[in-house]
Amino acid sequence: MECFKIYCGGDFIETPLTLFVSNPYDGKDFAQTWLAEEEELKFASDKAKEAFAKMKLMAAYEKSEALNFIASEISKNEERFASLIAQEAAKPWKYALAEARRAVQTFKVAAEEAKRLPMEYIRLDWAVEGKGREGLVKYFPIGPVAGISPFNFPLNLAAHKIAPALAAGCPIVLKPASTTPLATLELAKIIDKTEFPKGSYSVLPMKRNIGDLIVTSDDFKLLTFTGSSEVGWKMKARAGKKKVVLELGGNAGTIVSQSSDISHAVSRCVVGGFAYQGQICIHAQRIFVHKDVFETFCEQFIPLVKKLNYGHPLSHDTEITAMIDESNAKRVEDWVNEAQNDGAKLLCGGKRNGAYYEPTVLTNVTPDMNVSCQEIFGPVVTLQPYESFEEAVNQVNNTNYGLQAGIFTNNIKELDYAFNNIEVGGLIHNDVPVFRTDHMPYGGIKDSGIGREGIKYAIHDMMEPKILVK
Amino acid sequence: MECFKIYCGGDFIETPLTLFVSNPYDGKDFAQTWLAEEEELKFASDKAKEAFAKMKLMAAYEKSEALNFIASEISKNEERFASLIAQEAAKPWKYALAEARRAVQTFKVAAEEAKRLPMEYIRLDWAVEGKGREGLVKYFPIGPVAGISPFNFPLNLAAHKIAPALAAGCPIVLKPASTTPLATLELAKIIDKTEFPKGSYSVLPMKRNIGDLIVTSDDFKLLTFTGSSEVGWKMKARAGKKKVVLELGGNAGTIVSQSSDISHAVSRCVVGGFAYQGQICIHAQRIFVHKDVFETFCEQFIPLVKKLNYGHPLSHDTEITAMIDESNAKRVEDWVNEAQNDGAKLLCGGKRNGAYYEPTVLTNVTPDMNVSCQEIFGPVVTLQPYESFEEAVNQVNNTNYGLQAGIFTNNIKELDYAFNNIEVGGLIHNDVPVFRTDHMPYGGIKDSGIGREGIKYAIHDMMEPKILVK
Amino acid sequence: MECFKIYCGGDFIETPLTLFVSNPYDGKDFAQTWLAEEEELKFASDKAKEAFAKMKLMAAYEKSEALNFIASEISKNEERFASLIAQEAAKPWKYALAEARRAVQTFKVAAEEAKRLPMEYIRLDWAVEGKGREGLVKYFPIGPVAGISPFNFPLNLAAHKIAPALAAGCPIVLKPASTTPLATLELAKIIDKTEFPKGSYSVLPMKRNIGDLIVTSDDFKLLTFTGSSEVGWKMKARAGKKKVVLELGGNAGTIVSQSSDISHAVSRCVVGGFAYQGQICIHAQRIFVHKDVFETFCEQFIPLVKKLNYGHPLSHDTEITAMIDESNAKRVEDWVNEAQNDGAKLLCGGKRNGAYYEPTVLTNVTPDMNVSCQEIFGPVVTLQPYESFEEAVNQVNNTNYGLQAGIFTNNIKELDYAFNNIEVGGLIHNDVPVFRTDHMPYGGIKDSGIGREGIKYAIHDMMEPKILVK
Amino acid sequence: MECFKIYCGGDFIETPLTLFVSNPYDGKDFAQTWLAEEEELKFASDKAKEAFAKMKLMAAYEKSEALNFIASEISKNEERFASLIAQEAAKPWKYALAEARRAVQTFKVAAEEAKRLPMEYIRLDWAVEGKGREGLVKYFPIGPVAGISPFNFPLNLAAHKIAPALAAGCPIVLKPASTTPLATLELAKIIDKTEFPKGSYSVLPMKRNIGDLIVTSDDFKLLTFTGSSEVGWKMKARAGKKKVVLELGGNAGTIVSQSSDISHAVSRCVVGGFAYQGQICIHAQRIFVHKDVFETFCEQFIPLVKKLNYGHPLSHDTEITAMIDESNAKRVEDWVNEAQNDGAKLLCGGKRNGAYYEPTVLTNVTPDMNVSCQEIFGPVVTLQPYESFEEAVNQVNNTNYGLQAGIFTNNIKELDYAFNNIEVGGLIHNDVPVFRTDHMPYGGIKDSGIGREGIKYAIHDMMEPKILVK
Repeated sequence: MECFKIYCGGDFIETPLTLFVSNPYDGKDFAQTWLAEEEELKFASDKAKEAFAKMKLMAAYEKSEALNFIASEISKNEERFASLIAQEAAKPWKYALAEARRAVQTFKVAAEEAKRLPMEYIRLDWAVEGKGREGLVKYFPIGPVAGISPFNFPLNLAAHKIAPALAAGCPIVLKPASTTPLATLELAKIIDKTEFPKGSYSVLPMKRNIGDLIVTSDDFKLLTFTGSSEVGWKMKARAGKKKVVLELGGNAGTIVSQSSDISHAVSRCVVGGFAYQGQICIHAQRIFVHKDVFETFCEQFIPLVKKLNYGHPLSHDTEITAMIDESNAKRVEDWVNEAQNDGAKLLCGGKRNGAYYEPTVLTNVTPDMNVSCQEIFGPVVTLQPYESFEEAVNQVNNTNYGLQAGIFTNNIKELDYAFNNIEVGGLIHNDVPVFRTDHMPYGGIKDSGIGREGIKYAIHDMMEPKILVK
Repeated sequence: MECFKIYCGGDFIETPLTLFVSNPYDGKDFAQTWLAEEEELKFASDKAKEAFAKMKLMAAYEKSEALNFIASEISKNEERFASLIAQEAAKPWKYALAEARRAVQTFKVAAEEAKRLPMEYIRLDWAVEGKGREGLVKYFPIGPVAGISPFNFPLNLAAHKIAPALAAGCPIVLKPASTTPLATLELAKIIDKTEFPKGSYSVLPMKRNIGDLIVTSDDFKLLTFTGSSEVGWKMKARAGKKKVVLELGGNAGTIVSQSSDISHAVSRCVVGGFAYQGQICIHAQRIFVHKDVFETFCEQFIPLVKKLNYGHPLSHDTEITAMIDESNAKRVEDWVNEAQNDGAKLLCGGKRNGAYYEPTVLTNVTPDMNVSCQEIFGPVVTLQPYESFEEAVNQVNNTNYGLQAGIFTNNIKELDYAFNNIEVGGLIHNDVPVFRTDHMPYGGIKDSGIGREGIKYAIHDMMEPKILVK
Repeated sequence: MECFKIYCGGDFIETPLTLFVSNPYDGKDFAQTWLAEEEELKFASDKAKEAFAKMKLMAAYEKSEALNFIASEISKNEERFASLIAQEAAKPWKYALAEARRAVQTFKVAAEEAKRLPMEYIRLDWAVEGKGREGLVKYFPIGPVAGISPFNFPLNLAAHKIAPALAAGCPIVLKPASTTPLATLELAKIIDKTEFPKGSYSVLPMKRNIGDLIVTSDDFKLLTFTGSSEVGWKMKARAGKKKVVLELGGNAGTIVSQSSDISHAVSRCVVGGFAYQGQICIHAQRIFVHKDVFETFCEQFIPLVKKLNYGHPLSHDTEITAMIDESNAKRVEDWVNEAQNDGAKLLCGGKRNGAYYEPTVLTNVTPDMNVSCQEIFGPVVTLQPYESFEEAVNQVNNTNYGLQAGIFTNNIKELDYAFNNIEVGGLIHNDVPVFRTDHMPYGGIKDSGIGREGIKYAIHDMMEPKILVK
Repeated sequence: MECFKIYCGGDFIETPLTLFVSNPYDGKDFAQTWLAEEEELKFASDKAKEAFAKMKLMAAYEKSEALNFIASEISKNEERFASLIAQEAAKPWKYALAEARRAVQTFKVAAEEAKRLPMEYIRLDWAVEGKGREGLVKYFPIGPVAGISPFNFPLNLAAHKIAPALAAGCPIVLKPASTTPLATLELAKIIDKTEFPKGSYSVLPMKRNIGDLIVTSDDFKLLTFTGSSEVGWKMKARAGKKKVVLELGGNAGTIVSQSSDISHAVSRCVVGGFAYQGQICIHAQRIFVHKDVFETFCEQFIPLVKKLNYGHPLSHDTEITAMIDESNAKRVEDWVNEAQNDGAKLLCGGKRNGAYYEPTVLTNVTPDMNVSCQEIFGPVVTLQPYESFEEAVNQVNNTNYGLQAGIFTNNIKELDYAFNNIEVGGLIHNDVPVFRTDHMPYGGIKDSGIGREGIKYAIHDMMEPKILVK
């Protein structure tokens, strides 16, 4: 069984506590690593502070070259990374490979942004007091960053914290999800070879009680968390003087207008609804289709859903596989059953086998059902017809979440109305809400979070402006 | 008869050459001013250089307050300005008043932009040679500016040169159209009261031979000309080392798609086609209507054109009046007659009476007719049906000009296609090409000019970057 | 006695709880207003939500004109505002008048920024997934804002919350300091006359228990607080899902290098040290002078401090007057006495009379004395000689605070070193730390706060980006 | 003898006219290529237009990857490029290698800028007419570009035209200097392998009469020329409707203040004065040293100049070698002799041997001598003492040129004064005027040119804004 030492303040180490990593598809352990305790966290924090003093002095091209090296090494080893991701997260191969490639892009973008850290130069002579005065506003890195990343994108959602931190000049201590620590540990081997000083990056799998210390510690100037809403908002209250960025959950809505290309909408909704078993924050959970095309939509959609190919995550033609664990699959099963008991109609799927839950489509759902108002984080999609466009927008908004939404339309007024009125961080035209490029601003409103990722935007939160009045 | 002294290097003066200003509607002289000769031009240029040394040192708030004062005084005297414009240019009162109000806005925007002159601060450490280096890029005013403005917007098209020059810190010597010098001379009385140093603004009516000296003189660092294409491009070749900005003619196209609101399109096209007798560079000269709605469009459009109210420019309900002079009216008459001889069909209008030419609509025109390929600069509109949207776009592009265009559609694909493919400086959605706000970038491509106005954009051409490598 | 009704959800009202406002100089009540309770807060919050729906739809020019109207009305009534400020805050007339004028500037800047709310348009085709895609990033107002403002700038520090909120399109409920509610209530009379909908602005004096409800309420999307560090950081933990901006205290350091113009440094330090009795967050509390010029500095400084003219705040030649209350004067007295007991040497001042504390200068202080490490918020300055520039910078940084600092030098290396190494939000070259213009980014790091004010920067926190992927 | 086919519209071809390329050091031909005539120019122009239609549709990442490939291939073959440059231009090896490396950087920067082409999104509702309106300002490539590049940086000054053109989406036809065509022909072999369509890049050595056709042709939308002032300004008048960017000559001034580090200044001035035999537009031709340190400066400077190592350009320790041709060496000889006749004093150098002219230092020069007021473009430096800093600035400005200047000082007031008053495009602090990084804005004022290079800035001139009013 392959062993991955944890990466702590620049050293690859073992600790007294072993952690086994299993493949959710078959439940078998396939790798081993270790859990950090308070001592390791302290060491990593101290080294981060030492690293910070050096990182502040790195030239743009030095950071940029190191980040490009990381991108290049991930690229060269994309199959290695995809294999780790596929196994630890039960992610079908093609999605795992796509994630590895996205991480390449994430580091490449960071390599460019490292040269373009924000700076302003402004006139101060807008009133007599400022006559003869100008202001240079430089942004300085804030200091060590604490990152907590989720299981569903073990590499790229961590990369969205690591890459901007390194670009900004901030060391980062990362707590990966305990179920999926391998991709970020593999990444450590690459970062260790760069010119970033020891301590710039630590990746420490840990139990929640140690994770709590990260949240409350004064050693970090920013806490950036991607995970569930429930956990995230509690952290905000306990974070002390730190800045906090939260990338939380969603139950994204998608509107399919009668003016759209229905076949295109259908094929994108299959991907948006069932990619990685729906375990994506911007999974197309709730689809609203204009009544005139609802039947057509269903007729095309259901057969495609039924055809999704179940298999081992490492198999190249697998389209759907097990969920992250059986307890989550059971939760999904319960919610679907509840919904059916309350009047929802099952169009396909609905059965569970261990950690596997069939791709499932429901209709006749009401906004208060868990399958609708909660983040399902599983392979379940609801389909509802709508009469007026305004009604569809209201339904999309009828939730506590507000991450992303999709809209299929060819009508200018509908698109404008949607953009002005849908309460989300991102609206995707003619595609499903899962669309994301790694340099765009990404994040939610309402219960879906606070702050934005996307390299430039993440960097902004990791820097502090200082004005020189000249 | 009211006399307007010319404003030369900070002095209101008379010269040996008088210039009478007449109302094109009745041909009667109603005011008198004077023509500058080489001596006055030299004096104004010298004073401009002196003023430049002082303007460079003005604080942002000082320029801003002076520009706000100008805006405020024009606003207080908007009827006075409208009256001068209406008479010297034969502009119907409501359009003359609108122009005065736009000039207020032009100076207000400049008052803000004076505080926001461009500045950049950039990292230079993108490669090892730049390690430890940063760059401050400050934009400095280039020096005295020469402006030449046309008859059709005697105040606001001059304001689009004067306001950015003053905001940037550049003195300006303006040659107004000889037929319409009064609005800018009236403006001089206001500018004279501000803190801008004497010589910051001169307005010198002059004959073309003196105007030529402005074009070739080394005293100016920028020539900004609004007028005909024929004249403009010749100036470019003779301008020496100066920068040159040319705002020239057009024969703007408008597309009316079957997906649009036809009544709205019709009512806007009446304004776009006949406001100020079509003597506007972005006049809606060529209208292309989808064949399915062409008949409907014509049925609504022609009666409205016929109803346009002819009268004295000072009358508040006049909608159409005389052209700038009889020779232009004859030119328009000739072109319309030629077109009819070559197969065009007259839908209304077509008669001339002195300098007045009836609002005229033609169809069955071909792209090579003068009414189509030339800038008509008169109250004539051509209407053509189209079959495919691509064809309509090709027709809009089938000309040497490229200033603005309008498109009425509710179809996202049509709008995207139009924006990517129509060769113009500005495309107006759901309105006619005459739309312009005073802070937007405005100007043409192809034979329609080089450079952009719109305060911020005009200022940019009036400044020169200087980098301090620190 | 003049009565000021409180302004709640668009109505001027009285409540059962009266609040008397006294002049700290003589302790006499000179005005009366009322305290809001939970009911009024609820009403104001509800009206704010209603107003928000309307404010979102206001055009830029509508908000801009309304903000310019407010600026203009404050300007016309600057003596009225100065008189209220002088009395309620015991602020010498010239400083009170300056504050009124700064508030004019604050609203003027907001009037401009209302037209320039952030928007981005970005290419998304940086990787193959984004081919053909572009992103429009529009910033939308976040919703109702809760503001809490301090006693020391009753008008302008409130204006720094009100003006950006209105410009952004966010209604604001303001809790002024209970001791100084009048300036913001007077302001309400002006805002009430504008086109901003009822509920856009409420100003509610209230006891701390009601203020607590503002902090924890879900009705507000942002809490912006200016006040003490102790109170501020506690609020952050209790603010729920809200964004939080904290503008807290400081004990600003100033360095006087041997390369500087000493006379200039001295005269600015007198102002920076004793303006408004030192009750300013960026008061020049700690002055470090190079040892070669320390004696000269002291010889010039002390006589000027001694000459500061004590008197009634409304008297035009008063330079120093009573502190905000006797308890604060006693606190200052205690800290100075403690310092002397621990070895500090009194160069002048040191006596208290009721709420008045003499302008006081200490030397021989150590960093751990309260007069040095705490925010004194009173008329006390410490003077220390330094040997090396690095040492001076270390001393400036030797505190938990980090708001602003001043540096007098003519040496490029010293200035660069200082800017890169002094831990503050703003460094003022050749002036004292109290320098601030109303459009510059302003705020602290370390314990001095989180976030920045300065209209554009404050607006940024009041808006939420939404991307349209096209 | 190695043969280099010319690269015309995507094909490597020969023509009836051969061109031999010689090494100026020994006068021997070492390579052969061909001259294009009108026919080839026409073919290249036509292919450029075809390529343009395809380049407009390339995604950012496609252009970016192709540009990165170019950078990477130059880097892999840096010695090959250095060898060609060293021989065709008689450039000492270390400078030739540095140029190859700079070209790598130039293409890398372009690869990034290709993703960041300018776009703006602006509110138009600043006045009532714009209510509900917003504007998308997209910048589109203008079309085929004509580039003319000089002998002194055969690769990188061409790269500064090619790289931004390709990044912007504009095809480019380049006329290299006839003496130094090889580096750009070698580059063609790389560009030919990329995804840029055939016709995107042509490199055509040609006689001046064919070059003239490029200048006047309507096939190009921009002419970008780097070369002599005399030739450049004439082109501007004959360029028709094209935009024109001119990067012309200079006689850069450098100031050495008594507050500076003299040894540092001396060593940099040796490089700035004699690198590549002074054949650099920003060569440190005129050095002004404060009188108090003038003697010290001379004592350190002259010995270092005398020690410059003469040799073959391919030798790695050569510091100085032959000029580009004997006629230029004779011109330099004449000017130095003239200056001596008119009273200048020779501190070292002054002799010619064929195309080699010794590193020469003069003092006692007057501003009207050719060695001072003309661009010497040879290994000659003048040294003058100054009394006051203002006088030094005046002397730097006492010329028709205005490209870059250097200033060695540690005094803030001197630096500020210099930046505000020296009339140049770039001022380098604590270094010589030859400093340039490839992404900074670079270009001159006065007779030194119009427009700026530096990738982002060059791209800006190659694009045309189009606004969509929505």
